[in-house]
Amino acid sequence: MSLPSAPVSSFASDNAAGVHPLVLESIVASNQGSALAYGADRYTDEAVRHFRELCARDLECLFVFGGTGGNVLALASLLETGEAVLATDTSHIHVDEAGAPERLTGTKIITVPHSDGKLTVKDIEACVADRAQMHHPRVGVVSITQVTEMGTVYDPDEVARLAEVCRRRGLRLHMDGARIANAVVALGGDESLFRELTKHVDAVTFGATKNGGMFGEAVIVFSDHGKANLGYIRKQLAQLPSKMRFVSAQFNAMLADGLWLQTAAHANTMARGLYERLTDIQSLQLSPPQANSLFPTIDHASAATLRDWSFFWDWNDALNQYRWMTSWATTPEDVDVFAKAVRSVVSSS
Amino acid sequence: MSLPSAPVSSFASDNAAGVHPLVLESIVASNQGSALAYGADRYTDEAVRHFRELCARDLECLFVFGGTGGNVLALASLLETGEAVLATDTSHIHVDEAGAPERLTGTKIITVPHSDGKLTVKDIEACVADRAQMHHPRVGVVSITQVTEMGTVYDPDEVARLAEVCRRRGLRLHMDGARIANAVVALGGDESLFRELTKHVDAVTFGATKNGGMFGEAVIVFSDHGKANLGYIRKQLAQLPSKMRFVSAQFNAMLADGLWLQTAAHANTMARGLYERLTDIQSLQLSPPQANSLFPTIDHASAATLRDWSFFWDWNDALNQYRWMTSWATTPEDVDVFAKAVRSVVSSS
Amino acid sequence: MSLPSAPVSSFASDNAAGVHPLVLESIVASNQGSALAYGADRYTDEAVRHFRELCARDLECLFVFGGTGGNVLALASLLETGEAVLATDTSHIHVDEAGAPERLTGTKIITVPHSDGKLTVKDIEACVADRAQMHHPRVGVVSITQVTEMGTVYDPDEVARLAEVCRRRGLRLHMDGARIANAVVALGGDESLFRELTKHVDAVTFGATKNGGMFGEAVIVFSDHGKANLGYIRKQLAQLPSKMRFVSAQFNAMLADGLWLQTAAHANTMARGLYERLTDIQSLQLSPPQANSLFPTIDHASAATLRDWSFFWDWNDALNQYRWMTSWATTPEDVDVFAKAVRSVVSSS
Amino acid sequence: MSLPSAPVSSFASDNAAGVHPLVLESIVASNQGSALAYGADRYTDEAVRHFRELCARDLECLFVFGGTGGNVLALASLLETGEAVLATDTSHIHVDEAGAPERLTGTKIITVPHSDGKLTVKDIEACVADRAQMHHPRVGVVSITQVTEMGTVYDPDEVARLAEVCRRRGLRLHMDGARIANAVVALGGDESLFRELTKHVDAVTFGATKNGGMFGEAVIVFSDHGKANLGYIRKQLAQLPSKMRFVSAQFNAMLADGLWLQTAAHANTMARGLYERLTDIQSLQLSPPQANSLFPTIDHASAATLRDWSFFWDWNDALNQYRWMTSWATTPEDVDVFAKAVRSVVSSS
Repeated sequence: MSLPSAPVSSFASDNAAGVHPLVLESIVASNQGSALAYGADRYTDEAVRHFRELCARDLECLFVFGGTGGNVLALASLLETGEAVLATDTSHIHVDEAGAPERLTGTKIITVPHSDGKLTVKDIEACVADRAQMHHPRVGVVSITQVTEMGTVYDPDEVARLAEVCRRRGLRLHMDGARIANAVVALGGDESLFRELTKHVDAVTFGATKNGGMFGEAVIVFSDHGKANLGYIRKQLAQLPSKMRFVSAQFNAMLADGLWLQTAAHANTMARGLYERLTDIQSLQLSPPQANSLFPTIDHASAATLRDWSFFWDWNDALNQYRWMTSWATTPEDVDVFAKAVRSVVSSS
Repeated sequence: MSLPSAPVSSFASDNAAGVHPLVLESIVASNQGSALAYGADRYTDEAVRHFRELCARDLECLFVFGGTGGNVLALASLLETGEAVLATDTSHIHVDEAGAPERLTGTKIITVPHSDGKLTVKDIEACVADRAQMHHPRVGVVSITQVTEMGTVYDPDEVARLAEVCRRRGLRLHMDGARIANAVVALGGDESLFRELTKHVDAVTFGATKNGGMFGEAVIVFSDHGKANLGYIRKQLAQLPSKMRFVSAQFNAMLADGLWLQTAAHANTMARGLYERLTDIQSLQLSPPQANSLFPTIDHASAATLRDWSFFWDWNDALNQYRWMTSWATTPEDVDVFAKAVRSVVSSS
Repeated sequence: MSLPSAPVSSFASDNAAGVHPLVLESIVASNQGSALAYGADRYTDEAVRHFRELCARDLECLFVFGGTGGNVLALASLLETGEAVLATDTSHIHVDEAGAPERLTGTKIITVPHSDGKLTVKDIEACVADRAQMHHPRVGVVSITQVTEMGTVYDPDEVARLAEVCRRRGLRLHMDGARIANAVVALGGDESLFRELTKHVDAVTFGATKNGGMFGEAVIVFSDHGKANLGYIRKQLAQLPSKMRFVSAQFNAMLADGLWLQTAAHANTMARGLYERLTDIQSLQLSPPQANSLFPTIDHASAATLRDWSFFWDWNDALNQYRWMTSWATTPEDVDVFAKAVRSVVSSS
Repeated sequence: MSLPSAPVSSFASDNAAGVHPLVLESIVASNQGSALAYGADRYTDEAVRHFRELCARDLECLFVFGGTGGNVLALASLLETGEAVLATDTSHIHVDEAGAPERLTGTKIITVPHSDGKLTVKDIEACVADRAQMHHPRVGVVSITQVTEMGTVYDPDEVARLAEVCRRRGLRLHMDGARIANAVVALGGDESLFRELTKHVDAVTFGATKNGGMFGEAVIVFSDHGKANLGYIRKQLAQLPSKMRFVSAQFNAMLADGLWLQTAAHANTMARGLYERLTDIQSLQLSPPQANSLFPTIDHASAATLRDWSFFWDWNDALNQYRWMTSWATTPEDVDVFAKAVRSVVSSS
């Protein structure tokens, strides 16, 4: 079987895409003269202002280098000494950060089996029941991912219910929003839905790199819940960019006219398109995507053929499950090429 | 007294400068299509190849987000469980990293008073003598900065002597090379001098951001001394850029045709120029710069006036000592403007 | 229903028992004149000699304050920077140490569902398969508990098979032997069986407190696998007793004439006796004990009545499972009293 | 020169002494039947009650295994995430705990040169001035030692002044009271002076082992300043004794009838006696002791001869300074023997 040329855009992950032209333009435009380091510049003032407008809520907004660092800073800001974090067994902080939260904050991550990628109110209640014991790890922060690692999306009601039990139990709620833009779009929403989605949350890691950025994420900590000295803790976690303007310039491009939602909408649409082109193939198990990822079940041989052709990650080896992901840069042509190759490989297997 | 407009380039630090045009061009050029994340891309292959050629020695080369993260990774790669780090009391890892090495690696930094910014063989011997005691912090790694925090430069012989005592005493030697390019140039050297300077060192943090980059530094660990799983430790320290190509593209621009030494040479020349324009002022205590920084002693009132006009950092409050720093972006006009302002403020005080 | 007086010895845990008279006598006898602190005394020399004879193998033997500290020291001695620990989901280090290993060593504990309290070769192989990934926590040490938290015992062949796969995969094997004496006795063995049981293991936490001691455990690290500077790491973990002779004196009493196996044998016999007195009760689910603990399944109401009368711990709330434990101090009378109360409460429920 | 037999009691340290007979008696007496572990026993209730009476102030009182662990727990209870500790360059936490505070809490210890063993108000003010900077380690807790490592004693006014500046600057004050009993006695005081001395302090590590105990110290945290979940943090730091009654029994003996002050008074008297027997020796530089330690300056050869005969520690190699220490167990005969040997060795040198 001969396959066509691989698609220009990889389906491996949204971080295989480059930088969106408008974001890059903003970076280039900010490269004018001197700007004091560490955020004492006008680009950063502007980016923080954008976040204050977006959230319409008292907050601290800190830009960091990357997603793992952002999650660790958010957790560090919410944890009291000795407290553990509750998350699902598929959570990025548990599975994909090489133990960074444990090493950098000393916390323990308590996991529960995910329910379609999500954590439930019942999981929190069960974990809290264990807190009285001096010997058992003691949860202080609940962390959820939006979009989840299984491609699902918490709606505002679900988040509100989790937040309610957290508040009642003296816990704080963290949202790892590495793909929060894709979630907002998936829920059919705009900036007001973002506010709805985060209004009961104590800290959000707001993803940018996967959504058309070059590097840098934002950590938003809502007041009264985070530590007083977050800027200092960021530095201590080695997450303070010196030439900060180049991070801020990205957020300015993304947030100014809703670009962040447009790029996410495009990625979601491409995933939906790929799904629709493949849904009739009997031997391919595939649920409709909520955001920008698909989790097909394919036989090993077909998967291997396809991955050699255009790389993507396996997701659950035992279940023959893989992940395909679209991005702001994926084109309808990429989807066509990819869908055809899948069809030809899977059908012939 | 009325001062002219502030200079276009700040003398606050070399990280107030923007990105060198050729570096930015390389970033922009690498924004083509997809590239697998985390360094599995051709830009990164090329950047590593550049470092292998530059060092001409067996090594591991890891790109990280920033300087503090780079230092922490280098130390983590060299430290055995429980060991302490020896450094001067002005060292960046001790004074300017908010306790990151302690928090992120659990180490303790043992300090000795600096000798003109430097650590000496005698300091190491004295510290080692204390290792036999079970109760005392036990040094495992010696860390020196090049250019030092006082603007001085270790020459190859000095480094060799420090390395020799380290080897004899079972210690490893780390060089924080945030401004290593400025040091090489200050020593009148080229790439072969860089090799001379680092050939007995176990790990180098190789600075890029201060020398015309946007973000990202390199950690070079020479074989047999570092831990086997450095790539993994980098991830755990939250220092693994996902869209790695944009870090690598910077190094490709810098290392391809010696740009890194040209930018540093320019910065050093500008510092020398500033010194020469001011050396006749009696009331200004100022040593000639070895690299790209000057440490003037000025009365508080004059310093305050000047800082209001164009910001720079104080260095030693007790001694009325400040720091002026030039960069790849400083122009002769900036130097002129700055020198004139200094002259007019200091002379009238 | 009226219950008799509670038994003199609690069935809550073997650490509710006091100190064995011979151990206390040894402590008292060592309280003569001065002895240099931190282990530079003849009682400690003697205790180390006992362990060298017992193990007949090159080793380092370090006395520490307690069990959690002992486990953390053992893990710290075996872990390389950044490595994770593999253990069962019932393991003491995961469930009952409040997150101490994570906090004190920065490691992550990767868990798998236990198989009757145990870890299997297959669990290790599956975990190792995951090591290639830079993002996933990376196992370096496997930790098993002997007697397990479910009261089961690994036999020498099982340990050898686990050790073999560890060696083959570049892992180290830690045995949390908080109740290793009970395990040796359960396997029908003596000191030579202890040697058999530990000969492929890299480090053992050797329990004493639960087996008739007052405080203090031993960490035995077999050569070539542990860090060079264990004595120093112990101090750094705050596990170095100053008046060490009083820990050593306990081990001298326990190891001199096999007392450690006699006390454990007694505890095991008492557990067996309790089991036999209760095995005919239909409504009581109870497996025969391998060592000194029973894990009955009882209805909540009966359990509550019994616990009010004489406290014991619940073990698995969802399964109505509890734990009864005997010790060196449990008497046949205690067993009688306890068995009668259980019978009367459970039968009437 | 021939020396007599070495004294029965070592002058190396007060932790070379054994256990006071009344303390040992209390331990033995508590070895009756079962007692639930981890402090749920009547001996511990009683010991906590003693501390509540002694302090007459709202407090949490936690017993731990040892002094380093006690200091780490106290610091962990007072530190916010990322904060540093200020202490003198001779402080036990900096010099003699092998880096335990850094490793176990992630903090950094900022040091200042001691003033006769002490920290001053000026030291605190200077350190606080540095807090505004995001890059510099940021002090949160000030730690002083009582008796200091140079044998001096803070009086209640000195402590009050330090506490006042701490309160004003938003810092918390920790007292490492490893020898607090000797300090109280040195100040001519009783339990009310202890209250005076600690009433502005946020946490005290209350030493017992050096003052006639076997093992175990108390950490007293005064309300509103410590973390809510101290009992849990103690467990996480591996400082929770399981058979707690044997620690508590020691405190019960010590605190019941003022034994802790009698033993300390004896030790102080013995140090004074040694001083008086030696004060006329011209070649011996020796200040009068405030508590139970002397810091003689002797030539190296004499010191070596004496140490071979009866071991003691060197204190400052560069100054030829050593330390002699008395304890509850030192007898007038020991002092005689030691003084004579010193006289004969030093005079003949």
